[in-house]
Amino acid sequence: MQFIMSGRPSESYAVSILRSITPNLSITKHKGQAGKIAVIGGCREYTGAPYFSAISALKIGADLSHVFCTKDAAPIIKSYSPELIVHPILEESFNIRDEEKDLISTKVIGEVEKWMERFDCLVVGPGLGRDRFLLECVSIIMKHARECDVPMVIDGDGLFLVMNSLEIIAGYPLAVLTPNRNEYKRLIRTVLETEVDEQDSARQIQALATAIGNVTILRKGESDVISDGKTVCAVNIYGSPRRCGGQGDVLSGSVAVFLSWARHCAANGELTMNPIVSGCIAGSALVRKAAALAFEHKRRSTVTGDIIICLGKSLDDICPVR
Amino acid sequence: MQFIMSGRPSESYAVSILRSITPNLSITKHKGQAGKIAVIGGCREYTGAPYFSAISALKIGADLSHVFCTKDAAPIIKSYSPELIVHPILEESFNIRDEEKDLISTKVIGEVEKWMERFDCLVVGPGLGRDRFLLECVSIIMKHARECDVPMVIDGDGLFLVMNSLEIIAGYPLAVLTPNRNEYKRLIRTVLETEVDEQDSARQIQALATAIGNVTILRKGESDVISDGKTVCAVNIYGSPRRCGGQGDVLSGSVAVFLSWARHCAANGELTMNPIVSGCIAGSALVRKAAALAFEHKRRSTVTGDIIICLGKSLDDICPVR
Repeated sequence: MQFIMSGRPSESYAVSILRSITPNLSITKHKGQAGKIAVIGGCREYTGAPYFSAISALKIGADLSHVFCTKDAAPIIKSYSPELIVHPILEESFNIRDEEKDLISTKVIGEVEKWMERFDCLVVGPGLGRDRFLLECVSIIMKHARECDVPMVIDGDGLFLVMNSLEIIAGYPLAVLTPNRNEYKRLIRTVLETEVDEQDSARQIQALATAIGNVTILRKGESDVISDGKTVCAVNIYGSPRRCGGQGDVLSGSVAVFLSWARHCAANGELTMNPIVSGCIAGSALVRKAAALAFEHKRRSTVTGDIIICLGKSLDDICPVR
Repeated sequence: MQFIMSGRPSESYAVSILRSITPNLSITKHKGQAGKIAVIGGCREYTGAPYFSAISALKIGADLSHVFCTKDAAPIIKSYSPELIVHPILEESFNIRDEEKDLISTKVIGEVEKWMERFDCLVVGPGLGRDRFLLECVSIIMKHARECDVPMVIDGDGLFLVMNSLEIIAGYPLAVLTPNRNEYKRLIRTVLETEVDEQDSARQIQALATAIGNVTILRKGESDVISDGKTVCAVNIYGSPRRCGGQGDVLSGSVAVFLSWARHCAANGELTMNPIVSGCIAGSALVRKAAALAFEHKRRSTVTGDIIICLGKSLDDICPVR
């Protein structure tokens, strides 16, 4: 089945998906049932991105949000918020000697893996950096996540990693790639060995998702276009014209929560479409609504933190707690 | 051409320049198009100044705002806000041995230079400190910025650096110096070998800008007086009588954003005057408006953070998003 949403009332369609997968809240539920998310990212250079992703997941309604980052990044990410569980575990090359690498790699991977089965979704990449040793460790963590059937939203430097080692996610239907304009261009070149063709964009994104083996692609842009190789759809709810850094991190955290919820619905027979695609549609729709609301108040001075503040109200507007 | 603005309706003139260079926002634009700013500053002793400068740029509407600071300063500046990208790169003498200096200098410069071409403007100096080794590295970074035609707003300890090595910026028309009262006095003594003459201030600032080789001078004071050696103008919009530290850092970040926007207008043929001067006028006008608004609410207790909070509303009052 293929459907192209241009021509559809995409806003109401996206919103109805969001509504259908957002769980009811009930005092009989216990901690963890609304989702446990982990962000793999944060290094000496970047600390904002993993924070934005992890706190967004929590503010949308996940019960627990973890960050696995380097030892240098951890105190800073912890200082942004006491709400996150921040693990100072990853290592960058400059901090370790060559002869220690095997030992440290085993330790790093062991530390993350003991948590793995508890997570409903990983976000891999926000502020991860490009240190080779760190990326090698993360690629092993991703392979383990895959063995455990944990979905992964891959963004930022995580995309850099998988573009150089496509086998990590090839044929893994629980992987979502969220490229921006330039990352999408590189993906098309690497995988399809051609250039982006805007005239043929629906077919091209579908071909890309199929070529990687039915992963889901969420192409960020004026409209967010989503394909799992079988279907293509676009979310073009009006967001914000501000392009401040960090908005992609909010999106990755948002998609992680919604796809966890969507998988839960699918497991209960309450959802017929691919839950990964549903999660992408809902995640994109909510972030756009929140960005529009933030921009209404903050105008040109809107920064990513302002959008995060609006996630809760935007979700409640669409989907009030009964 | 020379024009002195005393006598002109300078508020409406400054505001009209601000309005003419501020870009329209559009959902078709992508991240980076509204400006990428970098602040070089922040050491063990000073962390507030580079934060104020960088966050001001973001709140006025830049898409990305970086800080290049020492390793000691970075975790603190990061902790002020996850919105900034903070690079722990610079080194101070007390942290390194003499025999390491060449190696470390090469590394520091390499780390900054790989980013250089991405920036629309640098701010050099907020909280930079006066460590000789650090300043040597920064002077090499400034030479590289010049080779790359990246504009530079030079304030605080950056002014101390260039006053001792005028050749770094001499004859570089994309440099702005933003001296306060004392720094201006020292500049006049160093460059013109005379004393400040308030009776002849317009001619004197023009002579100063010319003598350094058509850099732009923004002399901060009761009125901000701006000259590129060809024109002289003053911005005397009523600001705030509070003189709390940090306001100069807000100004340097503000000028950096507006001159980036003005250069974009000039490149498109939409601006006839020197875009560097336009950027100074607009940056000064906005900070004064924001300071007045902050003072209206906070009175004697106004601090620099209160002014930063008012940047967005002040800009939207002048230049509402269409």
